Amino acid sequence: MKIEPPYLLFLGNATDDLAAKTASGIAHWTPEKCLGQYRLEGCTVSLGLPDLSLEDAYRQGAKTLIIGVANRGGVISEEWIAHFKKAIVIGFDIANGLHHSLSDHAELVATAKTHGRKLIDVRHPDKDFPIATGKKRSGKRVLTVGTDCSVGKMYTSLTLARAMKDAGMDATFRATGQTGIFIEGNGISVDAVIADFIAGSIEDLTPDNTANHWDVIEGQGSVFHPSFAGVSLGLLHGAQPDAMILCHELGRPHMRGVPGFSPPELNECVELHEKMARLTNPNARCIAVSLNTSRLNDSEKQPALQQITEQTGLLCFDPNVDLTVVLKLLETI
Amino acid sequence: MKIEPPYLLFLGNATDDLAAKTASGIAHWTPEKCLGQYRLEGCTVSLGLPDLSLEDAYRQGAKTLIIGVANRGGVISEEWIAHFKKAIVIGFDIANGLHHSLSDHAELVATAKTHGRKLIDVRHPDKDFPIATGKKRSGKRVLTVGTDCSVGKMYTSLTLARAMKDAGMDATFRATGQTGIFIEGNGISVDAVIADFIAGSIEDLTPDNTANHWDVIEGQGSVFHPSFAGVSLGLLHGAQPDAMILCHELGRPHMRGVPGFSPPELNECVELHEKMARLTNPNARCIAVSLNTSRLNDSEKQPALQQITEQTGLLCFDPNVDLTVVLKLLETI
Repeated sequence: MKIEPPYLLFLGNATDDLAAKTASGIAHWTPEKCLGQYRLEGCTVSLGLPDLSLEDAYRQGAKTLIIGVANRGGVISEEWIAHFKKAIVIGFDIANGLHHSLSDHAELVATAKTHGRKLIDVRHPDKDFPIATGKKRSGKRVLTVGTDCSVGKMYTSLTLARAMKDAGMDATFRATGQTGIFIEGNGISVDAVIADFIAGSIEDLTPDNTANHWDVIEGQGSVFHPSFAGVSLGLLHGAQPDAMILCHELGRPHMRGVPGFSPPELNECVELHEKMARLTNPNARCIAVSLNTSRLNDSEKQPALQQITEQTGLLCFDPNVDLTVVLKLLETI
Repeated sequence: MKIEPPYLLFLGNATDDLAAKTASGIAHWTPEKCLGQYRLEGCTVSLGLPDLSLEDAYRQGAKTLIIGVANRGGVISEEWIAHFKKAIVIGFDIANGLHHSLSDHAELVATAKTHGRKLIDVRHPDKDFPIATGKKRSGKRVLTVGTDCSVGKMYTSLTLARAMKDAGMDATFRATGQTGIFIEGNGISVDAVIADFIAGSIEDLTPDNTANHWDVIEGQGSVFHPSFAGVSLGLLHGAQPDAMILCHELGRPHMRGVPGFSPPELNECVELHEKMARLTNPNARCIAVSLNTSRLNDSEKQPALQQITEQTGLLCFDPNVDLTVVLKLLETI
């Protein structure tokens, strides 16, 4: 699954920022890949990118139209189809992060075939994955894990991979969700893989590498989440992480989407992750906690980091600040 | 997914018993559903059932032709297609437990449509499942879990469900793999569900029930297996078991299919299952160990059961013998 930049970001008729979360993630992390945005009538969201027509964007070099918008049910609106057909005829590939597939739309498939263009449904793997072997692979791996969903695993992985590269380390971000895939241009949407192949798909995503190379693997969900723990555990086993970074947000009344389920206690979370990870990598350990500070006042941040360090005995860091100390920990592995 | 009995069991060109494992499981557990077997030239395996032509089987009342044979890659052989087409024309539904789908075969799909018959790919769910909610459901649930794959989880579940019914308890076997689905006539092949919906599919399979009703849920894989732990954990969370029965076989040099991975220590296995299961059912506990004694001499069985009871402090039983003592344990829940 390879998505060709530069991108034109399709926002459809989005009227709230959350609906455009994927597009705004792409624009934030890879502005250099984003030539502009393409909005339909009624769209009130903006990414701050130039509004371009399909023709203008293509003339400026755009290769892929990205459906960077979400809606209830993950449906491809009928109203959008004419725009997508036009884009294909002009010369765009189309990449889609919704649950529903472009490839289920016979007309689009036919148009893409006629014009030699690709329809990329990032939630629908385009290949068969092997059953995981559990065999240890060469190279090093760090995986972000979480106390819950949406606590900052992608964010931490991206900032860390960037900091590692800036420091001259050999590192690759490995995307496991649709936004990460658009940002990186490839990856595997692990939550869409057939259950038997979860761990195998991650072995495939992070193959053998040179001894000093780091894969920075984006985690998904949480082994403590009653809806998604199976995905998180298969990902953990396939990743065979040497190091894990536990991502956390303070003050959640319950696990995301499931009232009545309390977030896990941090030390219990570290302990369980290490126990489970050691099935496929006996040296796996949790090296730090990444705290999502986005809802804290400036004055609250430092005490919160300090408190978690005392509680867990681990470095607790804010992924928005200098990561030198995290890199130093990785260098000891 | 509902498979209509009686069945005619298709054995294809199978030349070894292992290839016919699914068919022999069906014949063993539900002989009353199996009118006969249908074998092609070269087939050297027999289930001990009458060899029937398609016409004769249909005349005797058979409703579904079951592809109860496995082969390398789970492929539907081209040679079989003519037989399946003929079966459809005669009036059979066809049910398939292979990885490859009948529904990918345009000619069969067309024939089935013309004749108003069903093609049932039990490994390919015919519906969309919800995301698991984790909400506690009414009724009681017992789940078989395992130290490894293929240790006797289906076998134990089926014997237990049968013993419970014989004892007048209100119990339903819930199938989660293809052989179990053919035996029960319905169920969910959980290893084929999209990763995000593993736990949700099991919530769907074992819905709210009357207070004294027991679902006996067939486990899959093992949370200690590096290839399949994600499936096993999602199944565990979706099942919300009140009771778990740990299935085990002695003397495995390594976990199935993955040399280098030792089977887990029994007490560690009990402890981890209870810890994980309590996420969705705080009262979950492991009540017994079911020992697969099929490779033990008669004189070895009793000492082996005794040794495991001493080691774990749990009842250890042979699923081939009287299960009264297991039923008594369930009655305390």
